[in-house]
Order: sequence, then structure tokens, then C-alpha cells
Amino acid sequence: MDIEEFRKAGYQAIDRICDYYASFQDRPVVSQVQPGYLVDALPSDPPEDAEDFNEIADDFQKLILPGITNWQHPNFFAYFPTAGSFEGILGDLYASSVSNPGFNWLSSPACTELEQVVMDWCAKLLGLGDHFLNKNGVGGGVIQTTASEAAIVVCAAARARYVREHPDAKLEDLVIYTTTQTHSLGVKAGLVLGLAVRALEVTPEDEFSLRGETLRLALAEDLAQGKRPFITIGTVGTTSSGAVDNLEEIGEVLKERPSIWLHVDAAWAGVAMACPEYRAFGKLEPINRYATSYGTNFHKWGLVNFDASMLWVRNRRDLTDALDVTPEFLRTKQHDSGLVIDYRNWHLGLGRRFRSLKVWFVLRRYGVEGFRTHIREGIALNEYLVSLIRASPSFELVTTPSLALSVFRLVLPASPALASGEDALTAHNELNRAFHRRVEGASDKIFLTQTVLNGTFCIRFAVGAQRTRREHIDQAWEVIRSNASTVTEEWVKSRISV
Amino acid sequence: MDIEEFRKAGYQAIDRICDYYASFQDRPVVSQVQPGYLVDALPSDPPEDAEDFNEIADDFQKLILPGITNWQHPNFFAYFPTAGSFEGILGDLYASSVSNPGFNWLSSPACTELEQVVMDWCAKLLGLGDHFLNKNGVGGGVIQTTASEAAIVVCAAARARYVREHPDAKLEDLVIYTTTQTHSLGVKAGLVLGLAVRALEVTPEDEFSLRGETLRLALAEDLAQGKRPFITIGTVGTTSSGAVDNLEEIGEVLKERPSIWLHVDAAWAGVAMACPEYRAFGKLEPINRYATSYGTNFHKWGLVNFDASMLWVRNRRDLTDALDVTPEFLRTKQHDSGLVIDYRNWHLGLGRRFRSLKVWFVLRRYGVEGFRTHIREGIALNEYLVSLIRASPSFELVTTPSLALSVFRLVLPASPALASGEDALTAHNELNRAFHRRVEGASDKIFLTQTVLNGTFCIRFAVGAQRTRREHIDQAWEVIRSNASTVTEEWVKSRISV
Repeated sequence: MDIEEFRKAGYQAIDRICDYYASFQDRPVVSQVQPGYLVDALPSDPPEDAEDFNEIADDFQKLILPGITNWQHPNFFAYFPTAGSFEGILGDLYASSVSNPGFNWLSSPACTELEQVVMDWCAKLLGLGDHFLNKNGVGGGVIQTTASEAAIVVCAAARARYVREHPDAKLEDLVIYTTTQTHSLGVKAGLVLGLAVRALEVTPEDEFSLRGETLRLALAEDLAQGKRPFITIGTVGTTSSGAVDNLEEIGEVLKERPSIWLHVDAAWAGVAMACPEYRAFGKLEPINRYATSYGTNFHKWGLVNFDASMLWVRNRRDLTDALDVTPEFLRTKQHDSGLVIDYRNWHLGLGRRFRSLKVWFVLRRYGVEGFRTHIREGIALNEYLVSLIRASPSFELVTTPSLALSVFRLVLPASPALASGEDALTAHNELNRAFHRRVEGASDKIFLTQTVLNGTFCIRFAVGAQRTRREHIDQAWEVIRSNASTVTEEWVKSRISV
Repeated sequence: MDIEEFRKAGYQAIDRICDYYASFQDRPVVSQVQPGYLVDALPSDPPEDAEDFNEIADDFQKLILPGITNWQHPNFFAYFPTAGSFEGILGDLYASSVSNPGFNWLSSPACTELEQVVMDWCAKLLGLGDHFLNKNGVGGGVIQTTASEAAIVVCAAARARYVREHPDAKLEDLVIYTTTQTHSLGVKAGLVLGLAVRALEVTPEDEFSLRGETLRLALAEDLAQGKRPFITIGTVGTTSSGAVDNLEEIGEVLKERPSIWLHVDAAWAGVAMACPEYRAFGKLEPINRYATSYGTNFHKWGLVNFDASMLWVRNRRDLTDALDVTPEFLRTKQHDSGLVIDYRNWHLGLGRRFRSLKVWFVLRRYGVEGFRTHIREGIALNEYLVSLIRASPSFELVTTPSLALSVFRLVLPASPALASGEDALTAHNELNRAFHRRVEGASDKIFLTQTVLNGTFCIRFAVGAQRTRREHIDQAWEVIRSNASTVTEEWVKSRISV
């Protein structure tokens, strides 16, 4: 493809992307295709001869778009939102035009330096302490691919630091602490690193927040058995219910044990700390006081296209001591002189994309105030949903709403009474699983996902897509309400007929 | 930014990318900025208020582009090429317009299924055996971020498999085998996983290729000491010199030890196997016969924008048994029914970008024949460079040229004679380090990188950027030749004056 063909294909792509964003009202939220739809539609071999790009671009519309679940759809309330902003798309576009592997400063100085700068911008936006800034030369921030990879990085760094300090420690005795509510990133880090993971218990009474006393008891128990807990992963805003661990208490317990790394994962909720009024909720103060590392994903609620998982560490040498690879063929005079950051030693891969550009575009085009407005709108919309749930006798909140996330379920009808010996929770879960299956059937209109909280099956409702407005909450509520009526009626009927 | 503002900014971006690609003759190959140039130029805080996008876009031109090392420049011969094709840029653009985290089939069925299909296309393009195809349901292919991450994945899977089969194995005894020429991915996997790495010796006599006998002796030695080698990483096309391990011999040795995983990394050279005439050189037959996993980066020489690191495994369950995470909130009926691939369990992260799209665009727009033509042109250009080196009395090849990579050095002048007791290799290396420093000084014109092969300092010359033509080899040769003359003259003069 020559330059003029690219110009034509590029304009066409831009126009079609505009059409796509203008047409959400005509698109299902969740792709309605069946497994195998595309495998069956495509030839099993690559073409021998070059094809015309118009045909390829048309196939994107015909074959790919129907297989896309539209995460930017205003009626998308599943999982957590995945940001997709025009600013982010433009950032990706410019970045891929200067494609480079970015493994050292010289690969493209702009990539390293812009990442240094925007990570400091993000730290300041969120109120992180100066010790997390790149500018201070001791701590610093780096963009990771995902929060799971960030967790692997910090677990590897924590393990390396622990083993340096305790040369007699056996890998078999090392333990990663999480809670039962920690995102799968905890389990995954354990699987990848081959280390034990202990999920500490949390309770509904504590709103699924890890307490210091639980941690203290686990430590005492494990240490007595010769185990070596070396990292605790705390969460601000769990995936299931937006729970926030009690980082003040955790920090106080770990203060006595400086060999244990404290990583705080705020993958979803962290960006809310852009708004000063949510910093107490988000535990900013104990994060700044106690956390060895802290991460949040701007690619979720933070307006930056996937992927942009931000990780800050108190001491960058913890990363480079664990991960530095500098063979001869990667040496540069700038690296040798210690003048520059070579980010390859701060993450798992060698190569890395130019991700800071889209962050820079977003932060500049929105400004701090615009970013805060976006966060506040999401929370206000969730508050509106909560008011609808609270006003309805058919529903109940399972946990206190967390920022832009609500977890709720259908109320168990008072009659007919349960059969004698029937477990109320089991029956209640059955009703709600039936409800969820029905709402899945309306996945062209809204997308909601489920979770289980200490045995209780519930529905999650996560707001935060950039285009969601009050009318979309109303539409969602109508789908939820009408399906709930049907399911409850059917449930009652089936029990009476039994 | 609304839709019409995006359209305007998008057109502008396309136009400016066209200008960028049309202007390489006016751009330095390597960015000429000094460390700190951008950190110093940007404000240390994000802007409070929204900025106009025109200003932001202009700043990309003014502040970012001068800090870009132009890997797509036709005079870029350092490291290995990083592909950047217009087809790849368009693929990235469409992909980021439907941004989604892709962690399960339902996230966007098209993303999973297109990856299944293009990974089979790539396998067929390269001549890989049917057992590596997704279609067969046992093996399969997945796009990883980088070859380093692919290595972590296969080491984690190999370790998990080994430990399942040998429950008594201690992690401390496990060993990853590489050679002294293996890319830093071997060391990095060891660092991340906390496992020992043993770099087996290779010799200049064997052109830095690992021999079966070396492996056999190392195994005997380690096993006798209670060590547990559990994976061997072989290479087709090492970074330093394009060396190819003797996979026939390695495969025969490992046949006796089926617990040891054989991963073959052909990050750079693998795409050359698109051309049938290079399949014997690339060890396709033993790869198909013996390799447990195989990887190559289409983002290097393979025309696909970074990142697109392809990994195939003989048995996908080796990956999922090691890495499966499926908490309740990630369950889908399609996953539960076993109908679909959930690629999150084939790699390190949870989320993943829609990378197959750019691969699909490239393979269709080039066709198999166009792809082969691109590879053959790179090799022909390197052969042309080799003819220049061979014809010059000032230079010598250090190793046999490998596909599109040559490793050479300046010949040590015959007079003045070395001082008595002076080591010839040390002197020769000094001369070549001086030569490399001088060529670094011409980094606006060409970019070459160095390596050290068993103590011998040499210069690498890697062809393969899409826009490189014979005239660019001529320009590069002129820079090399003239700097070599100057350096040799200075070297001779300094020795006479001493």
C-alpha cells in the first residue's frame, strides 16, 4: 500500500469509525453471534495473492463488527467499563505510525520521557505522594499491560527482595496474601510464579473489607508453621462488589514486618481519586503512607483506550534489582551513564508500545476538571440507579454501593413459603440465577454480569462508559424491572404448581 | 471530543502520517535529542482545563516526532527491524475503535475467532505442522505481547507440567536451559519465575549453534547433582549473529526425556520460513517433529506493527492447566459449554488487545506471495551488503551471514605491529569499539548496533525495514567505509606516535 492508498483507506476508516459511534442505538450491546461464526466464515488458508484493501475494509464491517461486543455502548453495564475515547483512538493511531519496540531510551526518547511525565501527571491527578513520582528519582511510575501483569511484576520484585534479605528462604514456603475478594490477578500471579496464594477471609459484616486482625492472625499462624508471607495484595474497589480493604489497619500490621511488600490494586476504583471527595473512600492517605506499590487502570474508567495499567512503586530499584537484563546488544551510552530510564527493566517483556501518548492526549483534552466531571457523572448515574433499586420492593442491594458500582438481587417472594427443610439461600440464588439468565437473553439491550459473594448470587451493575446518560439507566431499569416481574411470576407459579 | 471533531482530527492525523512517511529523507534515523529534552519541555502537572486538540496535535509534531527514533527509516539497520506497515496501522486503528479487554470469547467473539483463524493462517504460511493448528483442537496458536512474555508463559507451563509429573521436585532444583547466545528472554524468564538458568556453551566453530552433545553432557552433569532441567530454549536466528541451534540433535537428545519441554524461539528469523527455500535453514522439520512450543514475532520482519508475537503449542492444555483462572464473574455459558477458546488462559494478563486484526489486514493485502517477496528482498539486500564486505580488504565477516543479518568487523591493520605482549583480540576489539563509536556519531544517517561474540566485539547489520532499497545499502556502506578509513588512520597514527 503506498502513501496515497493509505490516505484513502485512512479517511475511510475515520469515516466508518464515526458511523460506528453514531449508530449505537441500532447495535446490540452484546454480540449476538454464535460460537464458530467467524471461523466458519473465513477461508482456512491465507490468500496467495494480494487483495484489494476496499474488500478487506468492507469485510471488517460485514464480518468483524457483528462479532464485536460494544463496550462503548451506553447500555453496557457489565464487568467494568473499558474506556474508548476519541482522544485515546487518536493517541493509538499516532503511536502506531511511529511503531518501535521502546525497550530502551534510545529506541525513541520521546516514548520513555513522555511516560515519565504522564505517570507523574497521573500520580498528581490522583493525589499520590511525591515518593511515587518519577521526578524524585527513587520511586516512579510505569505503564504495564494489565493489572494482572503488574501483579506478576510486583510479586516477582517482592520475592526477589525477600529472598535477598532471607537467603535461607525456600520458594516452597513463600506465600502471596490476597483476600477471597481479590481479583483473579492474585491467583494468576501465584500460578505464573509457582508460589502459594492464601486468600484471607473477609465478611459481609465488614463489607468484604480485609481487616488488620485477620491479617495479623494469618501471619502468626503461617510464620509459626515456617511459611514466609512476602507480599500482601490489598484492593481498593474489588471486582465483585467494589469493596475496599482496611488499609489503615493492614498498614499498621505490616509496619512491624518491613520485609513484606504491600501492593494496593485499585484497578477499577483508583481513577476516582482524581476527585478529592473520593480520596478518603479510596484510602489515599494509607496508600501514600504504607503502600510499596500501587496500581490503577486508566483503561477502565479512566478514558484511555485499553491498555494502560498504571503502576507506581516507592523504590524503582526493587523492580530493576529483580528484572534488569542488559546484554551487550542492548547497551547504550545513555544507559551506561545512568542518565535515562530504560523501562524494559520495570516490566515483564522487553519491547513495549508507546502507550503514554494516548494518556497525554486524554489528560490534555479533558483537563483535570473534565476528567473529574466524567468520574462524577458515573457516580451520579449509579446513585440514580440505586434510588430506583431502593424504591422498588422487588430488589435489594446486597452491599453498599461503591462509587459507580451496585450489587443487587431480586427479593425472595414472601409467598409461597419455602418447602420445609429448603434452604433459603439456595432458593434465593436459584431465583436470581434464573433472573440473570433472562437478562442475558436481553443482551442486545443491556449487558449485566453476575457474581457470588460468600455464597450469595448477585447481579453487578457497573456504570462508567463515556456515553452513558440518565436515559440509558432508565432503559436498563425497564429491562431489569420487566424481566424481574416475569421471572418472579414464573418462580411463584412453578412453586404453586409443585 | 464529539464525532465531527474526531473526524477532523482523524483526517489530520492521517495526512500527517502520510507526510511523516514521505519525509524520511529529511529525518535522522536516530533521534538526536539529549536525555531530558522532553521532561524539561513539558509542564510537571496536568492542565486544569481542557485544551484544544489542534494544539495537542501540533505538539506531537513539535515535541514528540523529534524524539522518535525512526525504525521505519530505510537506513535503519540496528537491532532487528520493527515492522510498521500501513496495513498494520489501519488494523490498529480499527481495533482501537472497538476497544475491549478481550478476556473471554463473549467480550468480543470476533477477537477470539479472528485470532484462531489468523494463527492458523500464519502457521500454514510458515509450514508448521497440523498439530500446531487451532483447528485441530489439541494444539494451537495465540498472540503474545512479546517473545519475552511468550518465554515466561512456556516456562511457567513447562514448570507446572514438570511439577505435576514430579511432585517431589523442589523449585530450587529446577533449571531453564538456554545457550550463551539466547536472547535476554531466557534470563528474564529466570528472573521473573525465580528459577535457575544455565546458559550452555556454544562455539565459533559451530557458528554459535547448540549441539546435541553439549546438551547431553549438561543433562548428565545436572541430573547427577540432583538438578532438574525442565525446559530447553532453542533458537533459530539468535540476536547477536542469527545462529541456529542444531534442533535435530537437540530433539534426539530430548526424545529420551519427555518431561523436558522444548521451546524454539525464532523471534526474528521465523517469518523467513514463509519462503520454502529457507525452511531447511530455519529447521522447520525438527521444529515440527520435536518442539513443544514455537514462537516468532510478526512485529519484527513480518510487516505487522508491534506487537504481534506468535506462539504455538503442541498441546493447549499445557497452557490452560498452568494458567486457568475463571472466577464466577468471568464465567460465561459459552465457556462452561467448552465451545470456545478463552485466550486469557493462554497468556499472562487477563485483558488482551485485538491484535489479530492487523495480522489479517497484512496477510490479505500482501498475500502469501507478497509476504515472500518482502522476505526475499531483505535477504537479497543483505547478500548485496555481504558482497561489499567481501570485496573490501578493510572488513571481515565474523560469522556466516544469516538471512538478512550480517556480523562483521574492521580488519586489524597489519602494521604497525602490536606491542610485544599485547593481546591481539583486545587490540582488535579496541579498534572496532572506536569504529562503532564513530558510526554512532553518524546516527542521523544510519543506525547500527554492536554485539560481543565469545569476546569478539562486532558490528551487526540487520536489513528488513519495508522501505529499504539497494540505494540505502549503498548509502550505509559509504558511511561505514568512510568512517572505517578515518578510524583506521587514527588508530595507526596513534600507535606510531606511541
